[in-house]
Amino acid sequence: MSAANRRIVLASRPHGEPSPAHFRLEEGRVPSPGPGEVLLRTRYLSLDPYMRGRMSAAKSYAKPVEIGEVMVGATVSEVAASQHPEFRVGETVLASAGWQDYALSNGAGLRRLDPEAAPVTTALGILGMPGMTAYTGLLQIGRPKPGETVVVAAAAGPVGSLVGQIARLKGARAVGIAGGPEKCAYLTQELGFDAALDHRASDLAGDLARACPQGIDVYFENVGGAVFEAVLPLLNDFARVPVCGLVSGYNLTELPEGPDRTPLLMRSILTRRLHLQGFIVWDFAECEPDFIREVGGWLREGRVRHREDIVDGLENAPDAFVGLLRGANFGKLVVKVG
Amino acid sequence: MSAANRRIVLASRPHGEPSPAHFRLEEGRVPSPGPGEVLLRTRYLSLDPYMRGRMSAAKSYAKPVEIGEVMVGATVSEVAASQHPEFRVGETVLASAGWQDYALSNGAGLRRLDPEAAPVTTALGILGMPGMTAYTGLLQIGRPKPGETVVVAAAAGPVGSLVGQIARLKGARAVGIAGGPEKCAYLTQELGFDAALDHRASDLAGDLARACPQGIDVYFENVGGAVFEAVLPLLNDFARVPVCGLVSGYNLTELPEGPDRTPLLMRSILTRRLHLQGFIVWDFAECEPDFIREVGGWLREGRVRHREDIVDGLENAPDAFVGLLRGANFGKLVVKVG
Repeated sequence: MSAANRRIVLASRPHGEPSPAHFRLEEGRVPSPGPGEVLLRTRYLSLDPYMRGRMSAAKSYAKPVEIGEVMVGATVSEVAASQHPEFRVGETVLASAGWQDYALSNGAGLRRLDPEAAPVTTALGILGMPGMTAYTGLLQIGRPKPGETVVVAAAAGPVGSLVGQIARLKGARAVGIAGGPEKCAYLTQELGFDAALDHRASDLAGDLARACPQGIDVYFENVGGAVFEAVLPLLNDFARVPVCGLVSGYNLTELPEGPDRTPLLMRSILTRRLHLQGFIVWDFAECEPDFIREVGGWLREGRVRHREDIVDGLENAPDAFVGLLRGANFGKLVVKVG
Repeated sequence: MSAANRRIVLASRPHGEPSPAHFRLEEGRVPSPGPGEVLLRTRYLSLDPYMRGRMSAAKSYAKPVEIGEVMVGATVSEVAASQHPEFRVGETVLASAGWQDYALSNGAGLRRLDPEAAPVTTALGILGMPGMTAYTGLLQIGRPKPGETVVVAAAAGPVGSLVGQIARLKGARAVGIAGGPEKCAYLTQELGFDAALDHRASDLAGDLARACPQGIDVYFENVGGAVFEAVLPLLNDFARVPVCGLVSGYNLTELPEGPDRTPLLMRSILTRRLHLQGFIVWDFAECEPDFIREVGGWLREGRVRHREDIVDGLENAPDAFVGLLRGANFGKLVVKVG
């Protein structure tokens, strides 16, 4: 066991785009578990866009990380020491240990992982929070019907890639938007999307209209901004828009220039009877058993695929996270910690 | 029977606020019913905000009225002559005869009215399209729970006044926004709203926050603009916003000045998991029997009240309609035609 616990804390709140300077690597002593506690050693740390929200003091659905606190995050951890009756040394668990080598836990919220059943990192991706986000948002709010057109952006990421694949499994057309030709090729050639568009191309609105000749019935929103502007005119009557994320806006420091397009959006909602609904994955916690059974089954049968982007070393988490917000990753971003 | 059929046609499309000059009164011959037809004589014509949309060529959920065509509208009509086996002279029907004295019908869509059961004009208001709009939008999308706070604007109008009263009957708090002290007094003193706010007051946002100390759970949207801006910060997590109308924007000729507040709205939808949904009453046509039974019952029992603003003479319909868009009416606006 290493004698030091490295931990990455929030050094300051970013105004706009975060940089590695907003984080600080500290070293402390490895804590010892008291009665009823376990010591967790982090094996893998998940990096996800929602963490940008935690760096801000703005009110949101979860409280911000305070300055000097360890950054939050889901982890695959190993029980390194235990004074808890239900956990034994050597067991692997899904935890929320954050950006650090070691953490104490009283056992609450830990989920034991079976490394034989699936690679443990899938608990951070396709069989974890991102996968369940795709599954619940698409099926509970988007509700695609056979023959309908589903559009998703950040489509090569862990949420978007599963949204498109589930849409296909439910008989809908899947159109993905991603950054660059390599990701687009992955969507159509490896994941079976019906079409993939590069949002860096010069005419996204035109490309999207051509890719969706019957309009759009479900738009799974996780980026906002220019992509949403291209999508809005194509939404059909009664289209559903699960609002899962707005990554293009997370670093905005002020509202964009006018005119104020809000009346255009509201008029579209009214005349086309659109249904927009924000959600976070835990709003649908009751769906977790269905999710595990259904997506787990598809994964074992090879009917859904996933891709991981693994970065080596806790010290590289800040760089990797900053890149995530720019779309530099290709697949579920995971840091191999120890 | 008058020898002439007066009819009000769309003379030109307004750019911005309509004026009486956008309409033209014409006279023609009273038509004669052929086999299978009835001749309807208009007794009452309903004037409603949706008609502003029909004056525009912009794509919406219904096709526009063409230049030179008779303005559309629901009517209470009397069968003046009949060659239809199911309708007899003297019967009163709910029809869509438009802004004219006489119209032919093949019987499709006519609904016989029983003047003994309820005053016939209620078929244009509380027991008609406006009432059903309130009933379905509030209960199917808004779904207020006991103790929740429901806010509605244009609250002294036929839709808003019923929204608030149904909210109260379902155990929610009802807060109405209306134009001027007389309408506000009507809401609290005659209809039982918990609070009423004058949108012409200088501090609507502050007044609204004080009237909704627990935030807003349902906002029944029928005006948009400044009222929606005041509402948005107060919407609670999981609030529902049935989008029924946007009357404050119907005369907009260009988008308002910047900045573009769309990202603010989308961020609110995401972080507070709001549910916005546009609808028109016929999206919920299957609810009509429930509506007639339930609201009809409340009306007979005196548990809901309504108010009509009756204008005399077809020739006054254009002025009355222009006033409606400015909130000049007080109660359901109906033109007594003949």
